[in-house]
Amino acid sequence: MFRTHTCGQLRLENKNETVTLAGWVQTVRKFGSITFVDLRDRYGITQLLFAESLNASLEANPLGREYVLQVSGTVNERSNKNTNIPTGEIELAVSSFTILNKSAVPPFTIQDDTDGGDDLRMKYRYLDLRRNAVKKNLELRYAVGRSTRNYLHENNFMDIETPFLIKSTPEGARDFVVPSRMNAGQFYALPQSPQTFKQLLMVSGYDRYYQIVKCFRDEDLRADRQPEFTQIDCEMCFVEQEDILQTFEGLVKRIFKDVKGIEYTEKVERMTWENAMWTYGNDKPDIRFEIKLCNLKFPSHTFPDRKDISSLVSGTGFNVFDDAESVIAIAAPGCSEYTRKQTDELTEWVKRPQVGMKGLVFIKCNIDGTYKSSVDKFYNTERLKAIADAANAKAGDLILIVAGPEERTRKAASDLRMYMGTTLGLRKADDYKLLWVLDFPLFEYAEEENRWVARHHPFTSPKPDDIGNMINNNPVIENAAEYLKHPYANIKANAYDMVLNGNEIGGGSIRIYQKELQEKMFAALGMDAREQQHKFGFLLGAFEYGAPPHGGIAFGFDRLCSILGGSESIRDFIAFPKNNSGRDVMIDAPSTIDEKQFEELQIKLNLHS
Amino acid sequence: MFRTHTCGQLRLENKNETVTLAGWVQTVRKFGSITFVDLRDRYGITQLLFAESLNASLEANPLGREYVLQVSGTVNERSNKNTNIPTGEIELAVSSFTILNKSAVPPFTIQDDTDGGDDLRMKYRYLDLRRNAVKKNLELRYAVGRSTRNYLHENNFMDIETPFLIKSTPEGARDFVVPSRMNAGQFYALPQSPQTFKQLLMVSGYDRYYQIVKCFRDEDLRADRQPEFTQIDCEMCFVEQEDILQTFEGLVKRIFKDVKGIEYTEKVERMTWENAMWTYGNDKPDIRFEIKLCNLKFPSHTFPDRKDISSLVSGTGFNVFDDAESVIAIAAPGCSEYTRKQTDELTEWVKRPQVGMKGLVFIKCNIDGTYKSSVDKFYNTERLKAIADAANAKAGDLILIVAGPEERTRKAASDLRMYMGTTLGLRKADDYKLLWVLDFPLFEYAEEENRWVARHHPFTSPKPDDIGNMINNNPVIENAAEYLKHPYANIKANAYDMVLNGNEIGGGSIRIYQKELQEKMFAALGMDAREQQHKFGFLLGAFEYGAPPHGGIAFGFDRLCSILGGSESIRDFIAFPKNNSGRDVMIDAPSTIDEKQFEELQIKLNLHS
Repeated sequence: MFRTHTCGQLRLENKNETVTLAGWVQTVRKFGSITFVDLRDRYGITQLLFAESLNASLEANPLGREYVLQVSGTVNERSNKNTNIPTGEIELAVSSFTILNKSAVPPFTIQDDTDGGDDLRMKYRYLDLRRNAVKKNLELRYAVGRSTRNYLHENNFMDIETPFLIKSTPEGARDFVVPSRMNAGQFYALPQSPQTFKQLLMVSGYDRYYQIVKCFRDEDLRADRQPEFTQIDCEMCFVEQEDILQTFEGLVKRIFKDVKGIEYTEKVERMTWENAMWTYGNDKPDIRFEIKLCNLKFPSHTFPDRKDISSLVSGTGFNVFDDAESVIAIAAPGCSEYTRKQTDELTEWVKRPQVGMKGLVFIKCNIDGTYKSSVDKFYNTERLKAIADAANAKAGDLILIVAGPEERTRKAASDLRMYMGTTLGLRKADDYKLLWVLDFPLFEYAEEENRWVARHHPFTSPKPDDIGNMINNNPVIENAAEYLKHPYANIKANAYDMVLNGNEIGGGSIRIYQKELQEKMFAALGMDAREQQHKFGFLLGAFEYGAPPHGGIAFGFDRLCSILGGSESIRDFIAFPKNNSGRDVMIDAPSTIDEKQFEELQIKLNLHS
Repeated sequence: MFRTHTCGQLRLENKNETVTLAGWVQTVRKFGSITFVDLRDRYGITQLLFAESLNASLEANPLGREYVLQVSGTVNERSNKNTNIPTGEIELAVSSFTILNKSAVPPFTIQDDTDGGDDLRMKYRYLDLRRNAVKKNLELRYAVGRSTRNYLHENNFMDIETPFLIKSTPEGARDFVVPSRMNAGQFYALPQSPQTFKQLLMVSGYDRYYQIVKCFRDEDLRADRQPEFTQIDCEMCFVEQEDILQTFEGLVKRIFKDVKGIEYTEKVERMTWENAMWTYGNDKPDIRFEIKLCNLKFPSHTFPDRKDISSLVSGTGFNVFDDAESVIAIAAPGCSEYTRKQTDELTEWVKRPQVGMKGLVFIKCNIDGTYKSSVDKFYNTERLKAIADAANAKAGDLILIVAGPEERTRKAASDLRMYMGTTLGLRKADDYKLLWVLDFPLFEYAEEENRWVARHHPFTSPKPDDIGNMINNNPVIENAAEYLKHPYANIKANAYDMVLNGNEIGGGSIRIYQKELQEKMFAALGMDAREQQHKFGFLLGAFEYGAPPHGGIAFGFDRLCSILGGSESIRDFIAFPKNNSGRDVMIDAPSTIDEKQFEELQIKLNLHS
């Protein structure tokens, strides 16, 4: 061993002990004839004191930033204590030192606030990883994993590894494929998730399975997607939705406790998908703040059971509202005194292409009980008050109203709500609110192909009450224009998402376990019997031999860690992430391969010219 | 929840309780008007009693093997107790039951000794996994993983995930490659191990890293290899070999304790590679039994420091020994009275192509102190006694002698030693003996290319005393015939293997951490500067910025589990293994992919006609 202690270990109790440390030179400071060095390792920083007697050695062997150093000496009490670090009461009076390795000058500083840009940090990721900020993220990631494993172990879950070289069954996202040399002309695929394997484990009776496992999706990468990502993947049998919800609320609460020291004692809120869309315009609402959507007008088919209050805004000659499919208001608390500049900025904000609204209507609910709106020409005080009441606005609030086509307007209202939440400081970093979103639609309509696609995945069960509807109806959509009238449009899924502070951190479902229903599902998605057999014959086969009722969930591990770490970016929580082109710029991958490899795999390039 | 208890849970204490169970029908037995069913789940088996009153229901809903059943009823004390199972004192008097799912008749029986052949079992792996024998293996695997994680956690190791989509740097084994769609014409590779990444983590200061991680090698599969396999992968910095040996002896002892209940208190033996080859003819000797090789004759260059005792066997006109490069004897304890039939069988055994010897010479060391050999014509009693003494044979032993070319003969002697160990019952299943094999040669000679290859891998450090030799000599081999005289032939590696009962369960090394030495190593393996930079530029770069001394080890997780589980086959310890052609016959992978996938990846097939 090159050391007797770590750089984070020594305290006043070790005074006068002779010790050896090893680590990296963080800083070198000369004060007259003596030299102070901060020596850093994974565990902390210890101050070293090189007395005048070592100056000749130091001149012969000068130290530089990030040099690897081994030092022996005596632990002294510091005269000038540093209360910011645990080792701040002592320093090491060096008696001898060895430079274990030198370092070139790093391309950026190894500090919390580094001067390295993103590209430089990624290229020299091995240096970036030395920064305390990144190290803390990986430590948090490890702690989340450890807590997860402990909780699941205590609840009888078994970690069972599923294969990485599987079969390509693209459904939604693209597979990464792997040419097989031993089976020329054939390919493996890397798993997008262990979905079918964990279901087979349930058929095999393994009861409670989990894995913290890498998954792969060959998608065009948005800012915060990675081609390889990690899931906490779980499955249980002989359970109903309620059992899953309770088990995995328990998991997340345990992680809060182990990792953040937070006792999450409140009941986890639950909300149907329809309620979430109606109230928040979003299936993963941030419920840390109260602002809700007021649906002043909406197309009757989207929420058939909701009360139509469009009379509040229509019939006054205000074409923007009269012509719009949807009109949605939110009340921003305490913003009635926003200046013209501020409201103009909000208008510009919703007009950006990402939001895509044509404008924004304001109603100021003044403290004195009067109203002032940007549409006073069309709405009298009585109307304005009625709208304000509907939007649950109080004196002092500012009502913001967007109007346009249903889907875009709902999303814009949701975005605006989130923006105001952030602007008003209502999305507190240290506040965590969990939410289950339930009862998603089972199917989505794919316009281009005029058919149904699975909203979650093809293994998700419909709600028990909807099974008859699904089995007994023909999935074919005869009249594309009226797809919403097809009985399948109303089928709800036995599916659930866990949402934390506006982020979906996990999702799952109770699965289909009946062969006939699974075949019907595949057929509904446009798969004929041959394709079903080719892609999923093994699963349909397994369902013939006593498949138990089962269900599960998967958490996005990278995302969960980033939220717990208070960061927007999952990349900061992955040791060696890829950039937006799917490249690892440090190792320079992907890259070309040898002619011999092409030859052995019996493939060749076919580049589009 | 579909149950109140599991099928392994109920005891006499639960008598008279009303409970609900769910599980699979193991057996149905009718006794007159009552029906007994054994209901099975992951946790055990519970006997169900269907009284006469349920016969109408049973006739309407007949039960079959592997049906999924939910039953409610009362826990009764059995009159006829079964002491073989934990639930054997009770039975469940069924009041109502529901068939949750039916099952076709399984293609083989779900029992410890199944009637399913290997192919059938693999095709229906989801049924095979229901068998207790397989379940126990996966439970053991989980326990080994859990024990490993706990020990490493307590020793400050951090689980850090390394990437799966990396760069192809084939060196020895072939890489599996993954075409990149976003970077057309380029490929990722799947890691053969996280070697360079764990070294980068050391450069980053992570100090103690571990991962239980999938690795991939595209090799022609021998009986017990898998294209994807799992490693316990570890690395430490600021350590020397001794620290690693102690840390990981500790790990394996902990696994013995946690998983097998064995307190392994003895000191773990250590042996140099040369000693292992000399004494056992093998670099992973099974030291559970005493038989050792007696090197009666050997080429002087192979073990230059060993005593030449060839005068014992040469010069008597026995051409077989006189002409042989090597003559090696072992003494089989207590076998002096082997019959002619038995010795003939042994002769046939060594003549098989796998062993490849021309014959076997016997010397019987009779109980009465006399000797009788198959070569009495050439050797008098005095000579025979001298050979017997050299071979450490006692009265009652049978000496077996093989002769031929060095490498083949040494291997044959080792194989024969193992065969006799097995035959004589000296390799006891419940006996575990650990051994470190140390000081491997750093290089092996590749005859076809007349160059050095790394015996372990190109990141392994030479012994400190050999660094000068390596740096200061030219690796080029001028005279192929005399490669053994090249200074590189004598360089020892700072490498170690852990051997358990004759199996290599782990191996590792102290790594090179000096840029200059790493470049010299790459050059010695025939890589020019350009290739070094293309393949390992990131590592050489990292070594410029303060790389600490470091080293590590990797354990073959599948193999370790199979040995602890007392099996020869790793396949039985993998939930979804592949066959010898690298196929998953259950899901039928690899398989063809769609034209659209080829198009997007910009590759096409180039099948050899």
